[in-house]
Amino acid sequence: MRYALGVEYDGSEFKGWQQLGESGCASVQATLQDALSSVADAPIHVVCAGRTDAGVHGECQVVHFDSEVARTPRGWMLGTTTRLPPSVCVRWCVPVDEEFNARFSARARRYRYRLMNRQVRPALYRQTLSWERRPLDADAMHRAAQALLGENDFSSFRSAQCQALHARRELQAISVRRHGEVVEVEVQANAFLHHMVRNIVGSLLMVGAGEKPESWIADVLAARDRNQAGPTAPPQGLVFVGPLYPEHWQLPAEVTL
Amino acid sequence: MRYALGVEYDGSEFKGWQQLGESGCASVQATLQDALSSVADAPIHVVCAGRTDAGVHGECQVVHFDSEVARTPRGWMLGTTTRLPPSVCVRWCVPVDEEFNARFSARARRYRYRLMNRQVRPALYRQTLSWERRPLDADAMHRAAQALLGENDFSSFRSAQCQALHARRELQAISVRRHGEVVEVEVQANAFLHHMVRNIVGSLLMVGAGEKPESWIADVLAARDRNQAGPTAPPQGLVFVGPLYPEHWQLPAEVTL
Repeated sequence: MRYALGVEYDGSEFKGWQQLGESGCASVQATLQDALSSVADAPIHVVCAGRTDAGVHGECQVVHFDSEVARTPRGWMLGTTTRLPPSVCVRWCVPVDEEFNARFSARARRYRYRLMNRQVRPALYRQTLSWERRPLDADAMHRAAQALLGENDFSSFRSAQCQALHARRELQAISVRRHGEVVEVEVQANAFLHHMVRNIVGSLLMVGAGEKPESWIADVLAARDRNQAGPTAPPQGLVFVGPLYPEHWQLPAEVTL
Repeated sequence: MRYALGVEYDGSEFKGWQQLGESGCASVQATLQDALSSVADAPIHVVCAGRTDAGVHGECQVVHFDSEVARTPRGWMLGTTTRLPPSVCVRWCVPVDEEFNARFSARARRYRYRLMNRQVRPALYRQTLSWERRPLDADAMHRAAQALLGENDFSSFRSAQCQALHARRELQAISVRRHGEVVEVEVQANAFLHHMVRNIVGSLLMVGAGEKPESWIADVLAARDRNQAGPTAPPQGLVFVGPLYPEHWQLPAEVTL
């Protein structure tokens, strides 16, 4: 039997999603696999929709795994959550067709980046906010960001460590909005390159702070050169909202196109 | 010179706002006074708008203090924040008239209570959410809550330890709204009794879960008996949004009526 899980995690205490060899560093994937394997009393391996870096959070990461153990979806959800640390939980579990693949069946991924824009660092919601003390023009950032829409070569926003075969991605939506002292960037694409969201945000911050004109984002995109873009924004402001799948997989509404 | 400060804090790691004698427990007040005294190089005592219990957060607590030390408002704000732990910061500092008193000048206080309403505990935003697994009818909670509006004797929602001289308070606004899996209660009154918000929320939860009819909240209020109300809701879902002052004190918009 194949199952899909919706997984929520606070990335603050983890070295990222992926298991990193023998290092012994806690990864979300290893932590989740340990809990699932304990429920199943057999080793379980998961495949995720989108790997997240150290410090990045997941609101609804989706994974799939195979198991012949007789457990109800509710049993997997509650039994696994009980065995997870407070920073991780399983939001739902759904039995899926054997053809479903959390990574390859996803048609889009959504990310949200939030930062506190004021002179002093955030205290109350600091676990999920980064901090920018220069006053930002969120409307200018929003207008500049629209130049990224469509299928483009995102080499300028890709980290040097990125292992993707090519840099073409379809950016389907991007918005920048201010809510009081918080500036929020939401972005959706068919898939993302390594550090792509954080490099886009780092570049938009230069526009928002008035260091670069709005038209500069289009120039950076056209250059296909990582050296042209802004610095990588810090990880704690980034949340992987979740992937989106075609309706026929019959997954929960929040991950269905 | 008298100054007013806007203070934000994550109450998770504190034993509440107030300094508790010799116990050595960290209170927000003692932590803030230590940082201010370090900036002033002289002992500083603060008076707050509303004391919060252990685990309760502050989005814009207001305090006043007196000092003859020559520091700009910006200097107080940044110098104090630098000396505070990551869970506390000073959002703003404003010089005020000697007649201003953070506690007695406040005409209203606002609180927000947020809880995750689903079968599994929250992971990502767990520091500022409590958890209720029974499905809640937020609309029923909202309707029931309106019975509390106006000037009433809130003895039924007051803790046994409450030291207020009487239990009459004017509840000016209360709303309950659902945002996806999160249920949010917002409440404003001229002042609050000890545990009043958490006891109101605990009672509304019984209505939301269908254990009590909507009309029950009015019955509890009329009884003036703490034994009639629901249990005290847990502290981590509660945020003191802040006090409100008359316009003539010329404080920032977020704390001005």
